[in-house]
Amino acid sequence: MSPTKNKFEQLCHIFKEVTHLRSVRRLLNWDQETYMPQKGQTNRAEQNATLSRLIHKQVASKKTGQLIEELFAVVEPKNPDNDMYVCLRQWRRDFNRQKKLPTKLVEELSRQAVLAHEAWVKARERSDFSVFLPLFKSLVHLSRQKAKCLGFSKSPYDALLDEYEQGATAYELDKLFSRLVPPLKTLTQKVFDKSRGLAKEFSGPFPISGQKTMAQIAIVKIGFDMTAGRIDTVVHPFSTKIGPGDCRITTRWNIQDFTEGFFGILHEAGHGIYSQNLPTKWYGTPLGESVSLGVHESQSRFWENIVGRSRAFWSHFLPIAKGIFPGSLCMLDLDKFVRVINKVEPSYIRVEADEVTYNLHIYLRFVIEKELIEGKLQPEDVPDRWNRLFKELLGLEVPKDSMGCLQDVHWSGGSFGYFPTYTLGNIYAAMIREALTKEIPEIETMISAGEFQPIFNWLRDKIHIHGQRFSPTDLIRHATGKKPSSEPLIHYLETKFSQLFG
Amino acid sequence: MSPTKNKFEQLCHIFKEVTHLRSVRRLLNWDQETYMPQKGQTNRAEQNATLSRLIHKQVASKKTGQLIEELFAVVEPKNPDNDMYVCLRQWRRDFNRQKKLPTKLVEELSRQAVLAHEAWVKARERSDFSVFLPLFKSLVHLSRQKAKCLGFSKSPYDALLDEYEQGATAYELDKLFSRLVPPLKTLTQKVFDKSRGLAKEFSGPFPISGQKTMAQIAIVKIGFDMTAGRIDTVVHPFSTKIGPGDCRITTRWNIQDFTEGFFGILHEAGHGIYSQNLPTKWYGTPLGESVSLGVHESQSRFWENIVGRSRAFWSHFLPIAKGIFPGSLCMLDLDKFVRVINKVEPSYIRVEADEVTYNLHIYLRFVIEKELIEGKLQPEDVPDRWNRLFKELLGLEVPKDSMGCLQDVHWSGGSFGYFPTYTLGNIYAAMIREALTKEIPEIETMISAGEFQPIFNWLRDKIHIHGQRFSPTDLIRHATGKKPSSEPLIHYLETKFSQLFG
Repeated sequence: MSPTKNKFEQLCHIFKEVTHLRSVRRLLNWDQETYMPQKGQTNRAEQNATLSRLIHKQVASKKTGQLIEELFAVVEPKNPDNDMYVCLRQWRRDFNRQKKLPTKLVEELSRQAVLAHEAWVKARERSDFSVFLPLFKSLVHLSRQKAKCLGFSKSPYDALLDEYEQGATAYELDKLFSRLVPPLKTLTQKVFDKSRGLAKEFSGPFPISGQKTMAQIAIVKIGFDMTAGRIDTVVHPFSTKIGPGDCRITTRWNIQDFTEGFFGILHEAGHGIYSQNLPTKWYGTPLGESVSLGVHESQSRFWENIVGRSRAFWSHFLPIAKGIFPGSLCMLDLDKFVRVINKVEPSYIRVEADEVTYNLHIYLRFVIEKELIEGKLQPEDVPDRWNRLFKELLGLEVPKDSMGCLQDVHWSGGSFGYFPTYTLGNIYAAMIREALTKEIPEIETMISAGEFQPIFNWLRDKIHIHGQRFSPTDLIRHATGKKPSSEPLIHYLETKFSQLFG
Repeated sequence: MSPTKNKFEQLCHIFKEVTHLRSVRRLLNWDQETYMPQKGQTNRAEQNATLSRLIHKQVASKKTGQLIEELFAVVEPKNPDNDMYVCLRQWRRDFNRQKKLPTKLVEELSRQAVLAHEAWVKARERSDFSVFLPLFKSLVHLSRQKAKCLGFSKSPYDALLDEYEQGATAYELDKLFSRLVPPLKTLTQKVFDKSRGLAKEFSGPFPISGQKTMAQIAIVKIGFDMTAGRIDTVVHPFSTKIGPGDCRITTRWNIQDFTEGFFGILHEAGHGIYSQNLPTKWYGTPLGESVSLGVHESQSRFWENIVGRSRAFWSHFLPIAKGIFPGSLCMLDLDKFVRVINKVEPSYIRVEADEVTYNLHIYLRFVIEKELIEGKLQPEDVPDRWNRLFKELLGLEVPKDSMGCLQDVHWSGGSFGYFPTYTLGNIYAAMIREALTKEIPEIETMISAGEFQPIFNWLRDKIHIHGQRFSPTDLIRHATGKKPSSEPLIHYLETKFSQLFG
């Protein structure tokens, strides 16, 4: 074996171990959200801290750094076609981030995130921010420290953003939102006025078993492999890839409205399909990992909204839904139903928001977490800041914190910089829609016929199988032929909603 | 801090990490048996192998060995009252075992055990031993190697036994079984003749939700903390302590016979209560760990059989059961019911066997696994050997391997030397019964009144809270005032069954 090959094998070995440990940590998180008994949290915090410490030790070790630098100096060509180069480039990024962080900080963040999560659950139940505040403070404090250690040129928030979306910056996101928010506010007002009178023409109860059946039929049809995954019920839906052959999605069910759990599952299955179609042969290297959360969200939001809330989709699925819930849905008219599930209305809960207002919810979170990390806002002032900004953006008074700043799980897990990836996902999804429709003009007819294979294949070939070969923006550029921009999203929303509501 | 104290702290730190990793590995195993998707097994095998490698590396490291030896030389007094001595004694044992094993072997055993488990599930479903054989061969081969590495004076099987029951040997077990098997065979024949005509006077369906309610009522009454544990449904029931505040038990439900799942849960809750009452403040050290599987089984078999199959227990619980299943049980007579659940009859499945024949099932497994590890029996000859021995001990022809050598999960997990601990558990449980009855003569009246606190307290104070302070036999001697012997078991069984069936 050549010395280069040998060193590369050594790195593969190190990062395979790291990958397994990260995969185990994801299982711990999944378990915490699904089945862990109430009193298990202290032990879970310690398990998490231990794994995080070991992962950090491995990635940031002198040996890892040395191997990476030695190989990086000689690897040629330095382009995305070279598998070894891609691995080294991404490992180097991983190493450079981890080595800047003290082990104690990594461990502490991991531990506090578990404890804060439990506090958040309680605080949200009681709608009492003070229950969450002490741990929230500690997480903000540790995250500010983390940003400082990682370093940044403009905003400390950039250092955190980069973890979820390589290369994203507060400055660029500010620009992006400034082009997106005004037209969305206008569109919200317009469509809200038009759809105000629209009443939901169906009512429950929709037995959960029926909802599960329907969800499973749908996600298997769009390409989720149920023998390599599972569905569980949780308070805050998420999806997670434990490893090849094991990708888990979750949702919550509303017995009065089957669409809530259904769109939730469709969303998570979008994530799941991406995870399931990453190349298994590269598992343990960056070529087997998803590229960014923005791209991940593009997959989930694409299936949930662009496909899932389309007329074509329901012309296929409404008959199936009627078969499962004959009593409640038999009289339902397709066009009316499609309008109902696309009703635009300022509301409190992000995950239940329509496609137009959704990004306003994200913008609000972006502003707040940026201010928090930059030290311009203190943790105790978050409820007030939230409520004022909410009024400004969506015109509503927040009646209680569980419907305001306590609604989302992210901050309780120490994830600052995560939220903007949702809007990036929406932007990418609209670009994907544009490109895909150009390449397969008959796509709507196919969806109406329940044929999803062409979409599945397109996404697999253009997005999934590339792992981290390209940067997120390059991947989108390769897939769609265009530089990321918010125009397709605005265009998609304006067209769709003017068609639906005139 | 004194140098001794400092070194001890270092060791505590090392073994705390090891404890967390072992705890994570138990969660992986729990997940594999409960919720892991079908295609997740390859990844699970790698996760397991990674954790086992890291655990092995930590325990068997030069530094660990050095710290232990340095402290062991100076620690005084060398008796069980000295916490530090106990920790060092048990850590030393752990170190001495692990350092003899090559990392590769540890890793491979861990990996193969996951894969073999999946093969066993398939083989058992199809009752086809050949599906299991290749992986079974590999596990036997690796386990023989393991025994060789660990070293032994008489039988290589001793080296494996010691993992589950410190100090147990094939020689001693042979002696024990030779005193136990003949009277049990005689008793089986006698009681079988008497109880032959006994018909089950109840029939299902018993809705699973009702069975779950009843199981939960019972285990909470006997002292299992449901906020620090949970119940799941599996093919092969087990219990596992993930960590403090997180102890999980499992069972399978039979819709036609509520007693099957009920006794299963009672058994696993017995394990669970032991786990939940180990001293949390010592977690991460041997003083916070259960002492042996034999003692563990004494707890489960005590609650399942000695309490759970007694007339007193059902004089309290039958009315509760009748309340939950009024249609199926309302006419049931207490005395007849107690006879039915204590019917003695040679049968195929160990976990469903009565108290008398149960130990014959164990003896069979003991003989076979001893021969396997000693190289006197080859893996491919197990079905034949099983069936001949079964005929000899229980007088029945085994119709298919799923009712014979494929029924148990243990060998598929590479657990050779585990089975005899069930009989040790029965022996200890009968001794505990004898001692407890002497100390609390009114115990039956209490059980009849649904008062289990005195039993719970006795077990907690005499067994649970000691962790690994004493050796298994010393712990039993302290608790019962007697040296372990099979007489109390034989006496208990002969008395109970002559009272029941004359």
